[in-house]
Amino acid sequence: MALSNERRIGRHAIMLLLSDDSEQELATLKQSNWNGCTGKVGSMEAHKVVAAIETAAKKNGIIQPNIYRETHALYHAIIEALHGVTRGQVQLGSVHRTVGLSFAVLRGNPYENELEGDWIAVSLYGTIGAPVKGSEHEAIGLGINHI
Amino acid sequence: MALSNERRIGRHAIMLLLSDDSEQELATLKQSNWNGCTGKVGSMEAHKVVAAIETAAKKNGIIQPNIYRETHALYHAIIEALHGVTRGQVQLGSVHRTVGLSFAVLRGNPYENELEGDWIAVSLYGTIGAPVKGSEHEAIGLGINHI
Amino acid sequence: MALSNERRIGRHAIMLLLSDDSEQELATLKQSNWNGCTGKVGSMEAHKVVAAIETAAKKNGIIQPNIYRETHALYHAIIEALHGVTRGQVQLGSVHRTVGLSFAVLRGNPYENELEGDWIAVSLYGTIGAPVKGSEHEAIGLGINHI
Amino acid sequence: MALSNERRIGRHAIMLLLSDDSEQELATLKQSNWNGCTGKVGSMEAHKVVAAIETAAKKNGIIQPNIYRETHALYHAIIEALHGVTRGQVQLGSVHRTVGLSFAVLRGNPYENELEGDWIAVSLYGTIGAPVKGSEHEAIGLGINHI
Amino acid sequence: MALSNERRIGRHAIMLLLSDDSEQELATLKQSNWNGCTGKVGSMEAHKVVAAIETAAKKNGIIQPNIYRETHALYHAIIEALHGVTRGQVQLGSVHRTVGLSFAVLRGNPYENELEGDWIAVSLYGTIGAPVKGSEHEAIGLGINHI
Amino acid sequence: MALSNERRIGRHAIMLLLSDDSEQELATLKQSNWNGCTGKVGSMEAHKVVAAIETAAKKNGIIQPNIYRETHALYHAIIEALHGVTRGQVQLGSVHRTVGLSFAVLRGNPYENELEGDWIAVSLYGTIGAPVKGSEHEAIGLGINHI
Repeated sequence: MALSNERRIGRHAIMLLLSDDSEQELATLKQSNWNGCTGKVGSMEAHKVVAAIETAAKKNGIIQPNIYRETHALYHAIIEALHGVTRGQVQLGSVHRTVGLSFAVLRGNPYENELEGDWIAVSLYGTIGAPVKGSEHEAIGLGINHI
Repeated sequence: MALSNERRIGRHAIMLLLSDDSEQELATLKQSNWNGCTGKVGSMEAHKVVAAIETAAKKNGIIQPNIYRETHALYHAIIEALHGVTRGQVQLGSVHRTVGLSFAVLRGNPYENELEGDWIAVSLYGTIGAPVKGSEHEAIGLGINHI
Repeated sequence: MALSNERRIGRHAIMLLLSDDSEQELATLKQSNWNGCTGKVGSMEAHKVVAAIETAAKKNGIIQPNIYRETHALYHAIIEALHGVTRGQVQLGSVHRTVGLSFAVLRGNPYENELEGDWIAVSLYGTIGAPVKGSEHEAIGLGINHI
Repeated sequence: MALSNERRIGRHAIMLLLSDDSEQELATLKQSNWNGCTGKVGSMEAHKVVAAIETAAKKNGIIQPNIYRETHALYHAIIEALHGVTRGQVQLGSVHRTVGLSFAVLRGNPYENELEGDWIAVSLYGTIGAPVKGSEHEAIGLGINHI
Repeated sequence: MALSNERRIGRHAIMLLLSDDSEQELATLKQSNWNGCTGKVGSMEAHKVVAAIETAAKKNGIIQPNIYRETHALYHAIIEALHGVTRGQVQLGSVHRTVGLSFAVLRGNPYENELEGDWIAVSLYGTIGAPVKGSEHEAIGLGINHI
Repeated sequence: MALSNERRIGRHAIMLLLSDDSEQELATLKQSNWNGCTGKVGSMEAHKVVAAIETAAKKNGIIQPNIYRETHALYHAIIEALHGVTRGQVQLGSVHRTVGLSFAVLRGNPYENELEGDWIAVSLYGTIGAPVKGSEHEAIGLGINHI
């Protein structure tokens, strides 16, 4: 892959979720001009996952709430990440399954060319399964978009 | 998430791809009864990605080639992982895009109950984009199945 | 395209939605044996869009309510049009988005051969986006079926 | 097809639904080591179809309720069968349609090699259509998975 | 289900494939005004399955080749049946799998109301799997359309 | 709809395709700061449709060829427009169908807030059907993205 490890917005967004200390990771990323946040959401409804991530991204200043292009970019990144988690139909409770997810949103320029501007990555990691404790396995998703 | 870090087959399968020394990681995982392999594949054709992973898994003894249920379990895990990479249509060249991927296959029991038996995880990490150098971003996928 | 402008049922159905005076357009189309109706529907639930169009088509005599083949033809045309609006998953509120749509239903024979009989076109035009005013962009859809 | 009629788990699962005496069929299948059950479910919600089949399979001892790998195998077989019924989007009421289905679950080894172990087949047969009596046509689905 | 066994076009189309003597079945169905044909196709390319069924239906006079509405009705019934066989993506070789299928096409009126006119059913039954003998399981599909 | 007619990038992009004189339309749009181009493409391969539109957009200076974010924005707008044309699977020849399409690409700011910056619309209009002259009906698609 042409990108150096340092530039990999997706890798950073995933590592944030898999690390044991995401606070520390976020601080380190901030020093390299990556602006991000993390959170958790559990639901049988996909739209609640979308809303939780959008709210966190706005509250933490990752996207500007009043500019639709930023919400639009984030929305599509979330839906793309949900494809990785749901693997076929972007549906949860309507096909009798539930998720417990950590999420991260990360913003910055993954390319050497400054004109590429900011991109946004949404990563999801957690479990998906029947609405019964233990009847679940892991799932992961990553969506990346220009912003 | 109820699972301890140690038990997370999906997390292990992703870390294998994101680590700087997957050989070392594989050896460590082996000590905890995780049996796995890694490899690379670049293609505009999804079926070549499938074939590359199946071949690696068979050659490295992760699945038994003569038992169809093992191939069947792996196949569905691969296709699920490809959903995360392709995010909507499991298509590459036919919609004018190409991938450069690392993959890992990992086998073991992620649950405390021995009766759960073996499960298999397929992880994918790399880039997807136009068939032009640099016109690409990262993608990730994870598929998990009982075997 | 082999079809003359006059014969293009899909083009007519779209122009009905984009014109400033759909009443006038409908009257003109009627003179050329195109039978149609228009309406509006805003919702976060796809099934309400389906129901609104079916009701309008039945109330305006575009399809015969007691013959299932006509409802069947219309239903599939509606779902096809919704694919254009939703672009991937025929879902609205369940993936946290809402639509405000104009719709048209048009019936007639787009082919020179009389044996082709009646066909039906459903066109949709409006906005799709977050359930927040202004956080939306346009969307369009067209479904065509034999009836 | 290489499989003898006797070995065809999918064919058996469908015949169970189309036969006039499924009780008798089940008894005959039992003698050949096929373990199964049948039931009925009508709903506008796909998750109720999933739940009805899971409940029947557990209550009749076709799968072991406490072992997740068995629930996981059954779940994916159900969703695959629903693809045949829904043909495009695994959705019912959300796209304004309803189903009235018979279902069968069958477990056994369809292969000559004993190492293939048990597989599970889920078959669905009934009607799909508008929530209006008579406005419906038949639908069928079959999902097969290793267990 | 409201329909009598005799009226069930989908059930007839499936039984044709599962019976041991489809010739005899076709003759019996003909006496009840069901007009049909059967055939076989094996391929890694979905478009060859489509073409084989279309050719058989035209050669056997099930649809009129010169009337597009009949081809259109058949085409959508075929694609719907392929959803049941492929369960997620209407793809074969491009996701590294192949099919060996029997197919039936059946035409007639499944409803008591004469105004419902002719409908068409396409049924598929056979195996899907890796392009390796024995690495396959059964699959089934049914598509029904007004014509 | 909150947007004035003048601001509707999607409506403009569709009207360009349906008008009898797209050259004149393009010139008028240019005066209102809409920058666009049109073209034609007929193919059984979706990736050729993608490539034709990308090439036209780059050659006409609608997007900057050296900045990946612009290609990325255009690519997703094209795929979204193809969803409207293909209505279910973004596939053409692989499911035995072909398209003859006009396309338009239009760039500008559809919102009153200057900070929304440029957006891009891709519209498609033409026919889809069997690879036999006359066995086809119209199709339309629209994709809109921030750039």
